[in-house]
Amino acid sequence: MDYSILTNEELTKQLALCKKRYQSLLKEKLSLDLTRGRPSQEQLELSQPMLDYIATYKPGKNSDYRNYGQVEGIPELRAAIADMLDVDKENVIATSVSSLNLMFDVLARAFSFGVCGSTPWAKLPKVKFICPVPGYDRHFKMLESFGVEMICVPLLENGPDMDIVEQLVASDEAIKGIICVPRFSNPTGDVYSAQTVDRLVAMPTAAKDFRIFWDNAYFAHELYADAPVLKNIFDCAGDLDRVYMFMSTSKITMPSGGISALICTPKNVKSTLEFMGVQSLSYNKLVQYAHAQFLPNAAALRAHMEKHAEILRPKFERILALLDERLIGLPQVSWNHPRGGYFITIYAMPHTAKHIVDLCKKAGLTLTAAGSTYPYYRDDLDSVMRLAPTYIQPEQIDVAMDILMTSIEIATLERMIG
Amino acid sequence: MDYSILTNEELTKQLALCKKRYQSLLKEKLSLDLTRGRPSQEQLELSQPMLDYIATYKPGKNSDYRNYGQVEGIPELRAAIADMLDVDKENVIATSVSSLNLMFDVLARAFSFGVCGSTPWAKLPKVKFICPVPGYDRHFKMLESFGVEMICVPLLENGPDMDIVEQLVASDEAIKGIICVPRFSNPTGDVYSAQTVDRLVAMPTAAKDFRIFWDNAYFAHELYADAPVLKNIFDCAGDLDRVYMFMSTSKITMPSGGISALICTPKNVKSTLEFMGVQSLSYNKLVQYAHAQFLPNAAALRAHMEKHAEILRPKFERILALLDERLIGLPQVSWNHPRGGYFITIYAMPHTAKHIVDLCKKAGLTLTAAGSTYPYYRDDLDSVMRLAPTYIQPEQIDVAMDILMTSIEIATLERMIG
Repeated sequence: MDYSILTNEELTKQLALCKKRYQSLLKEKLSLDLTRGRPSQEQLELSQPMLDYIATYKPGKNSDYRNYGQVEGIPELRAAIADMLDVDKENVIATSVSSLNLMFDVLARAFSFGVCGSTPWAKLPKVKFICPVPGYDRHFKMLESFGVEMICVPLLENGPDMDIVEQLVASDEAIKGIICVPRFSNPTGDVYSAQTVDRLVAMPTAAKDFRIFWDNAYFAHELYADAPVLKNIFDCAGDLDRVYMFMSTSKITMPSGGISALICTPKNVKSTLEFMGVQSLSYNKLVQYAHAQFLPNAAALRAHMEKHAEILRPKFERILALLDERLIGLPQVSWNHPRGGYFITIYAMPHTAKHIVDLCKKAGLTLTAAGSTYPYYRDDLDSVMRLAPTYIQPEQIDVAMDILMTSIEIATLERMIG
Repeated sequence: MDYSILTNEELTKQLALCKKRYQSLLKEKLSLDLTRGRPSQEQLELSQPMLDYIATYKPGKNSDYRNYGQVEGIPELRAAIADMLDVDKENVIATSVSSLNLMFDVLARAFSFGVCGSTPWAKLPKVKFICPVPGYDRHFKMLESFGVEMICVPLLENGPDMDIVEQLVASDEAIKGIICVPRFSNPTGDVYSAQTVDRLVAMPTAAKDFRIFWDNAYFAHELYADAPVLKNIFDCAGDLDRVYMFMSTSKITMPSGGISALICTPKNVKSTLEFMGVQSLSYNKLVQYAHAQFLPNAAALRAHMEKHAEILRPKFERILALLDERLIGLPQVSWNHPRGGYFITIYAMPHTAKHIVDLCKKAGLTLTAAGSTYPYYRDDLDSVMRLAPTYIQPEQIDVAMDILMTSIEIATLERMIG
């Protein structure tokens, strides 16, 4: 239905229908959740066999992974990760904490100890970061906790608006970094173009210790074989010392029980291990060992991720089919069609997102808080909504989407009528 | 032999005998190690059955420990730790990283975010800590990395010299904390008396955000049933908000594969989780689950630790018997007889420890570097030597001790002769 050609009277009639539908949904007293990007139980079962490797571990002749040491990670896991990301294994530091934890620690070290010998950021009057928006709420929360001033730059289809980024970082030495999810961006699902990646590495920065926090959280999370590929940032020409790449298996094996890695140049590896070795004598090497056995290389990872995609594809496709079927024609409402990752983003009519989230909540569907994809929860347009389709049971999708779409219709029509 | 009554000539003769013995040891081209407090493989095997709980984990009705959440730790592990330490389970934050890592993070948070709302320590011109000496090298290294000025206070048999501690902390608000291993202290094996514990909690401090880093690393590590008990610091009267207690299972189950916990008052728990929740969504809950199953309470822990003691007691006893037999009578050389923990400390004749460590190294026995039990490696007397008897094979003890004692004799006699 093309709502833009309807008269006020027709819109009012349509709104009444939607409200009636909403009332009947209210009566069902549902409890549904599309908030967070959690793997479903079915996905977790895919990695259950991995845990056997922990129980059957036997120490080698010259090493016992149950004991202290090797804070940089065990060699076979570093090699496996290197193969997955096409990087040098010497450049991989593998841990058993989450990549969020690892990233927080890298940031905390920059604040306490500086970056490869630079002034500790805590000693500076002001530290700023470029934040492509919409983005990942936990990144913003992390930066906020350290008092970082976040400068929003629009995320376009090919990555952040690089003209703006280049201009900002060239002139302001308080800008110490940018934080990105370059493939299947959280929440938009966009993949940075090769040109964007090139420009990020090549651009002149006023800060000599500028760092790209390259959160490659969805590097292997394509839903389709033909999904866009991300250029390997370490293949770019320019200042590679500015790159901190992060990966984790939270959404490959298990969120609580996975491994993560920091990938960076030898200079950064050396400087990182210097302080990491003060913080810890070793991470959990049995968990690392199990991962290296279960996913020894890129080929094993690909085969494993196809199984995830088989579970996730129908969920994404059903949600998108429902949106495409029912909401096309609602003015100023759109959504993306991601080829991978964990999220679908809906751009609601400006100034309706909070209202929609409230309507959904009352009808028993919890959504990520409106505004949470922006620093300080400030989405000035009050438009961006993030859906996480992974955790919900397939049979719950239709009713959850009915609540969501009815709420979107109500909020949009109310605003059109004015 | 009472060396003090020997003439210079007799000492010279004795020295020649020792040097001959040393030459014959050199020829054996040995490779032995008494440096670090590592559990032996035999000890690690005690906890091998624990790993089965990871492989056989099945999600519950309302929780799946493989997924995100519960950054404070799973309830059954918090309860188990609470029982072991006789504290409230709500006051336990359980993780799956090492206690060193946890402690580093607590310190890093104090520097970046302050303590329960106080000024971040990184913003202060100077932060000082009281360090009882001799102490644990990794504590000192950690404090040093944050630029903390370490004030050494002698560790007596009953704990640090409290008269000095009380005087220092009462007048200097830059002193933000003290770092302790209160039971079976690393390296001396001393246990703080109840009076010391009371005084630490009760003493007035100039700093309102003063903290006791109470590294209870050896809380369950007695070698004998009648080993001295440590007063529960949370039973003391005074400012309990100043206590951060740490425990870990590195030397109970496995160093790389254990769990650790921070135990503190509700006020500190709240403040800690506020920032911990920004750093991480969860630690490894399967590892936590396995620990809670394997060691569900204090009784299970006691039974398990008795098995460790059975392995360790003969090693400690053999080393002490050799020292008592051969070195008694060497002037200004003494050693402690710990009732638990992981170390034996030898107090060599002043200005000989480095020389002894060098002599041992040349003969194939690696010891902890002399000086490492002091901040900045500064043992002004050059006397304290730390032995770690746990990792060495029983059949290697005699020859390792032969190297060590011969080296001590040589260094001492050379100095006596002058």
